[in-house]
Amino acid sequence: MLVVGIAGGSGAGKTTVARSIAEKLGKENVAYISQDWYYLDRSHLPLEERKQMNMDHPNAFDSELLISHLTQMRQGATIDVPTYEYGQYTRGSATFPLAPQSVVLLEGILVLAIPEVREALDFKVFVDADADIRLIRRMNRDIHERGISYDDTINRYLSTVRPAHEAFVEPSKRYADLIIPRGGDNEIATNLLADLVEHYAVHKPQNNKHT
Amino acid sequence: MLVVGIAGGSGAGKTTVARSIAEKLGKENVAYISQDWYYLDRSHLPLEERKQMNMDHPNAFDSELLISHLTQMRQGATIDVPTYEYGQYTRGSATFPLAPQSVVLLEGILVLAIPEVREALDFKVFVDADADIRLIRRMNRDIHERGISYDDTINRYLSTVRPAHEAFVEPSKRYADLIIPRGGDNEIATNLLADLVEHYAVHKPQNNKHT
Repeated sequence: MLVVGIAGGSGAGKTTVARSIAEKLGKENVAYISQDWYYLDRSHLPLEERKQMNMDHPNAFDSELLISHLTQMRQGATIDVPTYEYGQYTRGSATFPLAPQSVVLLEGILVLAIPEVREALDFKVFVDADADIRLIRRMNRDIHERGISYDDTINRYLSTVRPAHEAFVEPSKRYADLIIPRGGDNEIATNLLADLVEHYAVHKPQNNKHT
Repeated sequence: MLVVGIAGGSGAGKTTVARSIAEKLGKENVAYISQDWYYLDRSHLPLEERKQMNMDHPNAFDSELLISHLTQMRQGATIDVPTYEYGQYTRGSATFPLAPQSVVLLEGILVLAIPEVREALDFKVFVDADADIRLIRRMNRDIHERGISYDDTINRYLSTVRPAHEAFVEPSKRYADLIIPRGGDNEIATNLLADLVEHYAVHKPQNNKHT
């Protein structure tokens, strides 16, 4: 099993890269995990307090559960992936089963920034994009797809997204094995990366960290 | 034929990356070209004037000859690679023959910064490293290997190397298909890149730009 971490800022194009790799390898060969599914449950706090939480900080994630799940998958077990109710900042009651595959793609802004998560990866990718392009992609998503107002989008961006990017996401780039510039629009790199992951997963399983 | 451009600042580790790729692919399968061999001949100028030339500027290179050579190699021809006499700032009278191979590695600080050269590449790599590490590698080379004094090394670095890096090398990073962080010391990326180049050169010749 090859665990590939795909980090990068909000709006950098991580999901596009991950999806392209999954499509090229065949979805049946890839287990996709979003770090966002592993937000900590905040149901013990009043809702107003939950809304003040910084969701872009390493402490917002249940990294212990995530790492435990990766370890279980390496041992061949199917895991019960948590779900997250974003509006409530709580873990959903449902889980869904995820079987181990030859490639696991773990995608999230902080998968290289949290040391214990980073150490669980076989191959570390950072998807890079200019800050203005990332902002535009995030606004498009928040405003058009999620119905968040422009003002709320900008407030959230300036109060937590941007500071966390500077403090945690950008510095984690130095731990990457490869950096993909122009994330999301860089088809050459994405195709190359898919070939590479296939090559390593299929032909060189002995290179994987924990097998 | 797959032409791979390897750019990056002075001291970033370009040569280490290129050498590792060549060793992994087998030197008999790789034609290595240094952009430095294509410095323009300055023999028509007085030596004092030559010494004032900025050797880190795009105009210092005979890119026309370089591109013509790449085109000839794509057509199967063996080229006569020029040599350069660094102390004299002149082209040497000798040339050496270089036969085309399945992979051509073109290495140099400005191979992504000069548009005509960049467009002649199939795959564009930027080797990245922090500025202080690059400076230390350059000082080690200039002082220990080339016998240049510390003061001359620093003067040259501040007067031409650094300004040209800021003006031409660093901005050319955005044209890369892949960025290799911690250049020279990043064995994972270098090995991956060698596998990738092999994969493309051997299995997917139709992907090459000009074949």
